[in-house]
Order: sequence, then structure tokens, then C-alpha cells
Amino acid sequence: MLKRTQDDKGHLPVRSIARRSGAPKSKADSGNGVAGPVDLSTLPQSLGYVLRRAQLAVFKNFKATFDDVDITPAQYSVLSIIESNPGLKQTQVSDALGIKRANFVSLLDTLEARGLAERAPAADRRSYALFLTPSGRKLMKSLHALNLEHETRIAASIGPEQRAELLALLAAIIGPLETSLGQSSPGDDEV
Amino acid sequence: MLKRTQDDKGHLPVRSIARRSGAPKSKADSGNGVAGPVDLSTLPQSLGYVLRRAQLAVFKNFKATFDDVDITPAQYSVLSIIESNPGLKQTQVSDALGIKRANFVSLLDTLEARGLAERAPAADRRSYALFLTPSGRKLMKSLHALNLEHETRIAASIGPEQRAELLALLAAIIGPLETSLGQSSPGDDEV
Repeated sequence: MLKRTQDDKGHLPVRSIARRSGAPKSKADSGNGVAGPVDLSTLPQSLGYVLRRAQLAVFKNFKATFDDVDITPAQYSVLSIIESNPGLKQTQVSDALGIKRANFVSLLDTLEARGLAERAPAADRRSYALFLTPSGRKLMKSLHALNLEHETRIAASIGPEQRAELLALLAAIIGPLETSLGQSSPGDDEV
Repeated sequence: MLKRTQDDKGHLPVRSIARRSGAPKSKADSGNGVAGPVDLSTLPQSLGYVLRRAQLAVFKNFKATFDDVDITPAQYSVLSIIESNPGLKQTQVSDALGIKRANFVSLLDTLEARGLAERAPAADRRSYALFLTPSGRKLMKSLHALNLEHETRIAASIGPEQRAELLALLAAIIGPLETSLGQSSPGDDEV
């Protein structure tokens, strides 16, 4: 089998994340055919792969940080939008976040059952306007503090300028993709 | 309610992705209490939120690109590792990719049922060594071409230097997080 090099797939020679990311090196084991480090092929130079790995590491940190309050990233996003836009209609919130409406209804049911948000009939009587409850508003103070802790930790290894650069680069790739493929949904998954 | 500004949560003033990412502006609708653009609060400056949104947009593009061959990102990663390390043990592949072993077995069952990969008893007889089948090896040529197409498209809006910068920044945040939280798993989800 022809061993492919990174270059012949047009990828850029970026230093491998394998060692830095703590990926376990394969143990030298007399019982298997391949000893020594596993060749990750071109994956460490694949933006899609690295992005997913980063997202999952960040999600894990979010989960650990928000464990005591039992709030998911999607729930935090929805609560933040309602806090900043009290009275917004359900569809406006789900559209702004790109969450499918069916998923959004169940997410909102949970927030309502926990006494954090509430639906009130909108002026047109055909839909609901969303508000935080007093305990929802109170909880937001803790959630914003936890999110700052989370954000600080995930960017701890890069400086403020690099963090800004990372945000700008991500925004630059999101724009054209969401325009051509339709908006993705941070609430589609289990989070 | 005190309207929080971005700065008092310690976030950096990075240009909003809301407009650029094609997030639908809320329609001025006489039936609701809030007209005009939805305030996304600090979400566009939250690395966690932007990362997830980027990952989902990229996943959508992967799915569209690999639709005809019906291959998921996790399947492509596993096939790539086996291609580059024929004879590797199951646990070595799952460890290298950070895929939970239970999920990995089912993923491998699918690849075997499709005739793309095969298990052979390892030298120690206690485990399996993994190989691509001839049709698996043949398919990899198409998959690498599709992945190049995918990678080219997701980075189309940024130049090669910025792409390298983005990979390096993502690698820099992944390393410490995976070390402290344990490795995340790009195969844990449905992908």
C-alpha cells in the first residue's frame, strides 16, 4: 500500500496535535503487530477533525464547570438570549440560535419545569413570548460567572490577542458555510 | 434588569458573528413585543459557543460532501488510522482517536459489514488486529479526495496562513484541556 504523505493531499505542514493533545501512545506490546506511536495520518492537519476534537474538549470542560447547576450549553444560550431580549417570541429565539423548533420546545419545557423561564401569550395570541422568572434572573448571575470561568479556562493556554484571533477565524469560516448550507444548530445534539 | 455589557464579563470586543453567520434577523412583527435584531448577548464572544457553531457548520459540510459514500467523520478517521497502521489492535485505534471502546466496536461492526475493514486475530490471540479489505483500500482514494474537497471548502474564506494559524490555536487549547479532563471522543456522538 502506498503510504500517503501529508503533502500529497494538499494539507499544510502544521505541527501535530497528537503528542500535545495527550493522545495515548500505543504501548509496545509483544502481542500486536504494530508497536510504537500510532500514525494519525493526516487527521491532525484536518481542520474538521481538529475542530471536532476541540469542541468536544471544550464541551467536557463546560459540563464539568456547570455540573453543580445542571445546565447545558444550549440551555445557557437560550437563557442568555431571553435575558437580553425579554418578551421575545419562541421562534425568534430558536431562529437566532439556529435550534430546530421541535428541539427548542422540549428545551423550553425543561427550563419552564425548573422554574427558570416562562411563556406568556404574545400580543398576537398566536404564539408565546418568553421571559425569565425571578429565580431564572437570579440564576443567570451564577451562570455568567461560571461561563466566565469556563471561557477563561479554555483559553488559558493562549493570550487575549490569540483568543480574539481564534474567534475571528472561526467566525470567518462559519459565515460562508451557514449561508450556503443553512444554519447549523447548537441545540440539535444532546447538549 | 441590569443590562450586562460584554465588557463586564471580561470578554474581548471581537466583531459579532451574528450578522456574518447568516443568523436570521428577527422580523419586525406587530404581534410580538420585541422587533428588530435579536441581541445575542455575549454568545458571539464566547469561544465555546462559536466553536460549537463552527463545528456544526463543518459537520454539515462533511455530511453533504460524503453523502454519496455514506461515511461519517468518525468512520473516515478510523479508516484513515487503519490505512496508515495496518495490523493495529482495536484498542490502539480507539485510544488514538479517543473513541470509547463500546462505541468503537459498533463502528467497526458497521465497517466490517460493509466490507471495508476486517478483524484478524492478533498475535496474542486475546484481541483483534485491524486491516482494510481490498475494497476498503480502494474506497480510501475516493474518501481522501472527498476530504480534500471538504477541507478546501471549509477553509475557503481564509488563506493558507490563516488556516495554519487556526489549526495551531485549536491545538493549543486542546492540549491542556485533554490532559486535565481526559481525552474527548470524536466518536461519542452520532457522527
